[in-house]
Amino acid sequence: MSDIICTVDVVLLTLKNGALHVALLKRDHPPFEGVLALPGAYVQADEDADTQESAARMLRAKTGIASPYLEQLATFSGRCRDPRGWSLSVAYYALVAEKSLVPAVHPDVTLSAVEQIKDLPFDHRQIVDAAVRRVRDKSAYSSLPVHLCGETFTLPRLQAVYEAVLGEPINKVSFRRKIEELAILERVEGAMETGKAHRPAQLYRLKKHFRQCLSLSDRALNATH
Amino acid sequence: MSDIICTVDVVLLTLKNGALHVALLKRDHPPFEGVLALPGAYVQADEDADTQESAARMLRAKTGIASPYLEQLATFSGRCRDPRGWSLSVAYYALVAEKSLVPAVHPDVTLSAVEQIKDLPFDHRQIVDAAVRRVRDKSAYSSLPVHLCGETFTLPRLQAVYEAVLGEPINKVSFRRKIEELAILERVEGAMETGKAHRPAQLYRLKKHFRQCLSLSDRALNATH
Repeated sequence: MSDIICTVDVVLLTLKNGALHVALLKRDHPPFEGVLALPGAYVQADEDADTQESAARMLRAKTGIASPYLEQLATFSGRCRDPRGWSLSVAYYALVAEKSLVPAVHPDVTLSAVEQIKDLPFDHRQIVDAAVRRVRDKSAYSSLPVHLCGETFTLPRLQAVYEAVLGEPINKVSFRRKIEELAILERVEGAMETGKAHRPAQLYRLKKHFRQCLSLSDRALNATH
Repeated sequence: MSDIICTVDVVLLTLKNGALHVALLKRDHPPFEGVLALPGAYVQADEDADTQESAARMLRAKTGIASPYLEQLATFSGRCRDPRGWSLSVAYYALVAEKSLVPAVHPDVTLSAVEQIKDLPFDHRQIVDAAVRRVRDKSAYSSLPVHLCGETFTLPRLQAVYEAVLGEPINKVSFRRKIEELAILERVEGAMETGKAHRPAQLYRLKKHFRQCLSLSDRALNATH
């Protein structure tokens, strides 16, 4: 019906050693066979209700990750980006905790620090850059970074994640007040993190409602006012 | 090559009587022939370098508007949105001054106040709502509303445009300071607006560099700090 190649690509981001990393997979067919690239797939009109479902299906099949926080980034298109012809990729980004991506579970996934990526096939480098910009822009004003934390976490851990994404230290008192205002967290009753050098700390998790949608703040979480 | 219908749709917004209006066109073929809808077209792989070009080409052909501020909004997709089959629309939004859209010049264009739209075919209502949200979100922190002003304008007129988009009055002193900080405007030398009840006011225009890209502010233009 159309001579346009329709695909989805996902920028799957995690924090490793305090730095944003992107998950790359070796391509198992031409073009660029054997080269590390973003996980992607054709949109399947007979299987997928929409492109969000295409992205979720592909991610589950290729990385084993189910139901991450997944948001549409932008659509990249044109006649030059894919040697097979005029193509269009609806790009998504997803945020997951590092432990969801350990190599033992996902032997095919390579984690690359976003600051150190040299080159990627197609326009995947441009897609990664756009995703990282989006995540940094949104993080100061939303619950987005919580999705990098894993299922349960302490408040000091959450603050460290925000600081890593935003690239700057945050005032503890105002950070805690704004996280409180976002009203996204619930205590895990009776659960404390112990065994560290510090005193035991309460564990929190994201309220169910916010696992697939964000809570937005009108004041930056890294501002002191 | 694929059984997916690839289109572009544009939410062309302007300010009329102080309210955001969207340009609608009567569809000249089925489905929904004769019904008002967003201007749209198939992506033409043999003509368009990318979907941004598809959107610009379609807008020029159907409304006569050339080179407006045009930005990708999001991609809407799925098997239910178009009776012809699984379809994907890369949606854009564009901002223009009302005088670019006067009915005398564009007899086919109907301007509808975005707050008063009842129903539109396909998922065009959802696309319009997303565009209006995006414009309101971005306006407080960027030069976006300037594109609603026409080629030259006074600072009071610019402030009135920001106020109309944001839906609230803005403090004049802090607004002028932040517009200055955005560094997007240049005086039209020797040009003053006269003939109104007020004293003559200097005319400004957008610097060339900012006609296709935005200048972003890290402080809201409607905040007093």
